[in-house]
Amino acid sequence: VRRPRAAILVSGSELLDGRRRDTNGHHIASQLSARGATVDHLLVAPDDLDVLVADLRFLLAAAPDLLVVSGGLGSTHDDLTLRAVADALARPLREHPAARTMVEERSAVVARRRGLRYEDVLEHTAKLARLPLGSVPLAPAGLAPGIALREGPTRVYALPGVPHELETMLAAIVDELASGGFFPPLAERVVRTFGGGELQIAAILEAVSHERLEVAVTAGGGEVSVVLRHDPGDADACRQAAALVASIEAGAAVFSVDGRSVDRIVADGLRARGETLATAESCTGGLLGGRVTEVPGSSEVYVGGVVAYSDDLKRRLLDVPGGLLAQYGAVSEAAAAAMAEGVVAVSGATHGLAITGVAGPAGGSGEKPVGLVFVGRAGPSPTEVRRHVFPGDRAEVRRWAVTAALHLLREALSS
Amino acid sequence: VRRPRAAILVSGSELLDGRRRDTNGHHIASQLSARGATVDHLLVAPDDLDVLVADLRFLLAAAPDLLVVSGGLGSTHDDLTLRAVADALARPLREHPAARTMVEERSAVVARRRGLRYEDVLEHTAKLARLPLGSVPLAPAGLAPGIALREGPTRVYALPGVPHELETMLAAIVDELASGGFFPPLAERVVRTFGGGELQIAAILEAVSHERLEVAVTAGGGEVSVVLRHDPGDADACRQAAALVASIEAGAAVFSVDGRSVDRIVADGLRARGETLATAESCTGGLLGGRVTEVPGSSEVYVGGVVAYSDDLKRRLLDVPGGLLAQYGAVSEAAAAAMAEGVVAVSGATHGLAITGVAGPAGGSGEKPVGLVFVGRAGPSPTEVRRHVFPGDRAEVRRWAVTAALHLLREALSS
Repeated sequence: VRRPRAAILVSGSELLDGRRRDTNGHHIASQLSARGATVDHLLVAPDDLDVLVADLRFLLAAAPDLLVVSGGLGSTHDDLTLRAVADALARPLREHPAARTMVEERSAVVARRRGLRYEDVLEHTAKLARLPLGSVPLAPAGLAPGIALREGPTRVYALPGVPHELETMLAAIVDELASGGFFPPLAERVVRTFGGGELQIAAILEAVSHERLEVAVTAGGGEVSVVLRHDPGDADACRQAAALVASIEAGAAVFSVDGRSVDRIVADGLRARGETLATAESCTGGLLGGRVTEVPGSSEVYVGGVVAYSDDLKRRLLDVPGGLLAQYGAVSEAAAAAMAEGVVAVSGATHGLAITGVAGPAGGSGEKPVGLVFVGRAGPSPTEVRRHVFPGDRAEVRRWAVTAALHLLREALSS
Repeated sequence: VRRPRAAILVSGSELLDGRRRDTNGHHIASQLSARGATVDHLLVAPDDLDVLVADLRFLLAAAPDLLVVSGGLGSTHDDLTLRAVADALARPLREHPAARTMVEERSAVVARRRGLRYEDVLEHTAKLARLPLGSVPLAPAGLAPGIALREGPTRVYALPGVPHELETMLAAIVDELASGGFFPPLAERVVRTFGGGELQIAAILEAVSHERLEVAVTAGGGEVSVVLRHDPGDADACRQAAALVASIEAGAAVFSVDGRSVDRIVADGLRARGETLATAESCTGGLLGGRVTEVPGSSEVYVGGVVAYSDDLKRRLLDVPGGLLAQYGAVSEAAAAAMAEGVVAVSGATHGLAITGVAGPAGGSGEKPVGLVFVGRAGPSPTEVRRHVFPGDRAEVRRWAVTAALHLLREALSS
């Protein structure tokens, strides 16, 4: 199966001077590769006509099947994408009647919403209807239409950079390409493991043949995930995929084979049982609660909890005995257990998860180094505490502590 | 003043197939542009030798002053950076004695830490000492040394992609370049405003001449920031900068002219007064506590608080009267006030900050739409609640709610 090759160009000086982090490039790459395209380039370029033209020519010279351009389609002087595409392809800009109608309609909406004169808005937006010759305008999700055109073997799309506009318009393009047979058939399996480490997975991959599969491994926070992709019409590939998944399941602690994250498995498990969770956090300062509530509907299973950053609050709000803290310290197995039990008692939730650790960079000692984290769980089954030492900086230690706490509950819910 | 031009190449297939979002590229771009370099390209490329070689040649063809490569310096078969640099520059790979010593030392450490045989580790790491001819090895912050070399006018650096290793090694490079006079003198002013909107700033920029300044505006979460940069030796530019800052201060609600974020101003203000903060969060689920504790040392000023996601926990842990919740609802001015006062009472902290709102996407109504957020503050001065309606998705509403709460406390601390 030949997989289409794609290139992405994201324009915006604010993405290169530290003001803003690009999110569109990652979104486009994710969407295209989820359908089976191979993304060869993601290029972030400033709002500079010469640079944009040179970049477009470089990307087109590799003759990708698909080139998606994001950003630079707006009403200000640094919105240069239409001009850059025209120059790169040596095509003139021409007013496109259908694009003109779209721009007029959207300008009228914007004028009404912002209390501006229609003529004043159109003065700045009219240029959005002047497209490189041969372009087809794409219906706008905001102010600016996108464009679609062909250049040799490459389908070129240019979309505005406002994230929700880009996402809406890209989804329509991907659906249309898919229904036209642009993407190859693709089977994908995601196997997620926890607690084993990358070397364990590497050993399995060395022992089990998988030359007809595309295999990608990611690791972080104690999780190692393996993504397998192959042609669903290739019987050998299907057999290899099944054998590899079976080997990973036999040799590593697999917790997900259906694509669900630990977050999702925990939420689904609580919901299925009609049970609830409360959290007690020290070094993570609320990030566990923040993560559990990332998804809509979390109020069905999450009641809240306590951020017991100071020892005083561990005593006051979680009834952790002062003597325990004095004897073992706040970063201890005993404190994690008492915090988890305390939050169950004060909240009335079914399960309690607690995190206490040394996130660093200061505060570490020989006995309690930076990265040492105790995660605790209390509830219907006996209280459990697990000790971790996470590598990385403060942000990583905190993120991984949250993941580890979720796994502790996942295991209890699955047993 | 001529500003050095930089290009960045980040390698890693996992950054192009949706598995992981690049953070190194943004970090490198931020660090270089903060010193006055102009970043013309940030290119993310897969672990594919041909693509990497083509990309390196493309970036070098523009003759940048600086090319920073991140990633692909490790022990696995897809770590291709050294080979790609050698091929792109048509230089052979040669074992470098100093690099060999670094690799042996680091391999011994890794072997000891992971309980592996030194020879087994070195078998996979030895290739990290084979550098493109003319390279100088850079001391590793983890396993792999970096490299520095010159190619025509361009200083080329290649660094490992592990974020904390990259950051450490990049900081050393930037410091060395700076002490060698590589970066131009640069005066920078950052003026941060809250509550005014972008149009207000645009109007000021239209009215005040600033053609000798570089001006960049960013907006989000109610904040609009203006970054001014200029040659400190240009007297006209200095006058323009002073006049523009004065105009912004006169025409907009400026809260920071020294580069400090609201997070930092609040933390500094509390520390200076010897006061403490506690938080009571509903729709943000702990993100306010998470943000306050992002920085080391936050335990001096932050005691913790309550995540009162359910109404039951608002009553149990914050003593919010059930009648109040029944009458006004959990998303109300009254609830925000009661939560802020409640968390001060139960925690003993000087100040309490509360957040309650409709983060969406569901749960909105005509009277209480998605994005409606009340932030409340209680403490030594009379309790205050502010009503916001934030645009954007669930994640944005929650992030902006946290920012708005911090501003409420900032204003109280500065009055």
